[in-house]
Amino acid sequence: MTGGPLTPDLRDALAGQLSDGALREVSDAYLSEPRGTWRGSAGAVVAPRDTEEVAKVICFARDHGVAVVPWGGGTGLVGGQTLPNAAPILLSLERMRAIRAVYPDENVLVAEAGAILADVQAAARDAGRLFPLSLASEGTARMGGLLATNAGGVNVLRYGNARDLCLGLEAVLPDGSILHGLRRLRKDNTGYDLRNLLIGAEGTLGVITAASLRLFPQPGAEGTAMLVVDGPRAALSLLARAQAMGGVSAFELISGQGLRFLRDHALPVRQPFDDIPDWCVLVDLGLPEGGDPACQLERLFEAGFEAGEVSDGVIAQSEAQRHELWAVRETIPEANKRTGAIASNDISLPLSEVPGFIEACGARLHAAAELRINCFGHLGDGNLHFNLFPPEGRSKAEYRDRAADLRRIVDDAVAERGGSFSAEHGVGRLKVEQMRRYGDPAKLAAMRAIKDALDPAGIMNPGAVLGD
Amino acid sequence: MTGGPLTPDLRDALAGQLSDGALREVSDAYLSEPRGTWRGSAGAVVAPRDTEEVAKVICFARDHGVAVVPWGGGTGLVGGQTLPNAAPILLSLERMRAIRAVYPDENVLVAEAGAILADVQAAARDAGRLFPLSLASEGTARMGGLLATNAGGVNVLRYGNARDLCLGLEAVLPDGSILHGLRRLRKDNTGYDLRNLLIGAEGTLGVITAASLRLFPQPGAEGTAMLVVDGPRAALSLLARAQAMGGVSAFELISGQGLRFLRDHALPVRQPFDDIPDWCVLVDLGLPEGGDPACQLERLFEAGFEAGEVSDGVIAQSEAQRHELWAVRETIPEANKRTGAIASNDISLPLSEVPGFIEACGARLHAAAELRINCFGHLGDGNLHFNLFPPEGRSKAEYRDRAADLRRIVDDAVAERGGSFSAEHGVGRLKVEQMRRYGDPAKLAAMRAIKDALDPAGIMNPGAVLGD
Repeated sequence: MTGGPLTPDLRDALAGQLSDGALREVSDAYLSEPRGTWRGSAGAVVAPRDTEEVAKVICFARDHGVAVVPWGGGTGLVGGQTLPNAAPILLSLERMRAIRAVYPDENVLVAEAGAILADVQAAARDAGRLFPLSLASEGTARMGGLLATNAGGVNVLRYGNARDLCLGLEAVLPDGSILHGLRRLRKDNTGYDLRNLLIGAEGTLGVITAASLRLFPQPGAEGTAMLVVDGPRAALSLLARAQAMGGVSAFELISGQGLRFLRDHALPVRQPFDDIPDWCVLVDLGLPEGGDPACQLERLFEAGFEAGEVSDGVIAQSEAQRHELWAVRETIPEANKRTGAIASNDISLPLSEVPGFIEACGARLHAAAELRINCFGHLGDGNLHFNLFPPEGRSKAEYRDRAADLRRIVDDAVAERGGSFSAEHGVGRLKVEQMRRYGDPAKLAAMRAIKDALDPAGIMNPGAVLGD
Repeated sequence: MTGGPLTPDLRDALAGQLSDGALREVSDAYLSEPRGTWRGSAGAVVAPRDTEEVAKVICFARDHGVAVVPWGGGTGLVGGQTLPNAAPILLSLERMRAIRAVYPDENVLVAEAGAILADVQAAARDAGRLFPLSLASEGTARMGGLLATNAGGVNVLRYGNARDLCLGLEAVLPDGSILHGLRRLRKDNTGYDLRNLLIGAEGTLGVITAASLRLFPQPGAEGTAMLVVDGPRAALSLLARAQAMGGVSAFELISGQGLRFLRDHALPVRQPFDDIPDWCVLVDLGLPEGGDPACQLERLFEAGFEAGEVSDGVIAQSEAQRHELWAVRETIPEANKRTGAIASNDISLPLSEVPGFIEACGARLHAAAELRINCFGHLGDGNLHFNLFPPEGRSKAEYRDRAADLRRIVDDAVAERGGSFSAEHGVGRLKVEQMRRYGDPAKLAAMRAIKDALDPAGIMNPGAVLGD
């Protein structure tokens, strides 16, 4: 079964059960998504004021067999928040944005699902702590969606994914019951791990309404370097070297193609090197108070230079320079957008497979079509954004018919090396076909059994992750 | 439904399907457990040689409705490996103990479920890496059981529980299908998190057959100190101080009662202080190469002393002294055993609730009965072993009728403060009643739905975790 549409009659009946202000206008923002590929639909946009009201909505949906799409900041890149043609209840958590409590002594913060990531970061900072989840959409993305999709970002190498930053969840399950799991415990072995089941389920098993989150001591001293490396293999050796020294917060791979895109579109970032290198890495350190990151980065450079891994480098000497280096990395997605990608891939690989993959998959793609590849991303996590672009002077439109085939070349190469076709963006609706093709049959069967057991009416985000 | 017994006829039929050597003698070791409280039963002990043979056993059990109890090292403390009177198939992983692969460059090791923890640690060490899971039974406990119970131990503060050390699982699900999930990825968002569902399910949702595990760089320099603290509250302040300095691997609380038990039973450990203090902490540091842990511990002592948190201390000046200090902590369970506990509690609390709990729960217990409390454990994780003993000159036998009531006082006090009645030992069969009393109703209902969906015949470790 899958949930059906919210008819106007049902909408009126639902509205009668909710508090003032719960019904929102169905505006474009709720129906579009960042890449502009799909458009969703809505029988109503409902923004409950509290968890009890979320439960009321879910009970209503369950009783009437109506589809519900949980809606956070709308920043998802795989269409999980966008159900076309079904007129579901779009359940927006936007009014539930409280930081319910901060426990600095425990390194714990409790936030509602509608809290914006940047606000959670700020609340942690105000308490003298760090909430390390950090990604491009942090000014818009909300905690519920970040957890439902197990978001990644630039600090995963050190602090883990959203999953690893969550100690407990409050959620409304598809039967309308409230899961009271806002624990603040580092160890708790009392039954099945529903928290991690809801995290990454992309709203198909319930609605996350609040979370207890892990905080960390703020680093006492931070530093950043951009180092020219001999290639992905050298970058990995350098990563191991950096990790043995300790304190690595981020280790990002940047290709010459990315730097050229920045230059070609005259984006306002300072090129770190006079001659654009083929490959470089951005290394970020966070050390305890008294540490000297610039000195440690210097030692890393020297050791890498001696080993033939590194040939040039810039070590930031001020906060302003750190931001300049980071701006290079963070502006690459904008440069990609302006160039116009044929296909974008968010993949991960076992670390030691990364260099071979980049080489072999690149060769296959170049044999199949004339194109440019911008390969960049979170090398420390084995997570690459491996995006395909037309050659100079041609447009992505000319490649429309080839895009699926080219994407398939990438996905097959990833699967052959034990990688994942979705590292940090999730499955949503975009990657349901890939899920079917590359998913383990036993896993898919167990997922379906769990879905049917917890959501027999199929009301929760139907079509996402599992397909219809 | 719950699985039934393996009759002699069924046993012969099963034996006919398996390779030579799969059937083991049903010896006492398989039926007893470390605390000697219960005795299990077995229609047969089966030790498959590989994953396919595990699947064959599960298919047989499924087809004939026979109960299966996965059996690792037999070290569990809550009876999860011990099913009385049902004559199940005891499925021992003892023959599947291979380290299948080590990837030092990726900080990954793939071990079969029957690999003994100490062997996994050694394999990591041989590759110049650290596998940080460490607990008293590491010479006997096997990876499958450690993962199925999400084991903890002394390094959780820094490296996490068994759950956090696992990147992927191979398992046989209750329908006999093989889950091929031995991924070596740091980021993978492709569907529901079955890995974490199986971890901590204590064999009720399937049999873990192999795991890909996270390794870490070996610390370049390690150090240990035992510091006398003013009480649990001072200990927590000192913990925050130590964490801001970085590199804390373990932070263990030790009570004067524990030190007195060591002395009373003349156990062969050196008392760290001339006068036994009321409270002390064991602090362990692991720093990158070039770090100076003794110097950092000195700074910690000085800062703690100035703040009135610390009054005395010993900082190990050699590996031998480190081991001496650790021996104090590690011999306390033996001292407890010789004293004879009325009740042992493996609890966790939100960190800031720990001091209030120790005080208030202690007062309630002393008001209810004449007894001694030995409170010790992994303070950094909020995990206390809060064990109750008769006063000197009396025996635990005299308290037999009171034990349940006293345990209930502890559990109630834990629940009031948002804690857990099982921090690291799991639920097994010992704590099913507590699970029912303190478990969240929505969680219990969802657990039951998942169990019935994945194991409709109820063959997997029936009675554990969920009860009958």
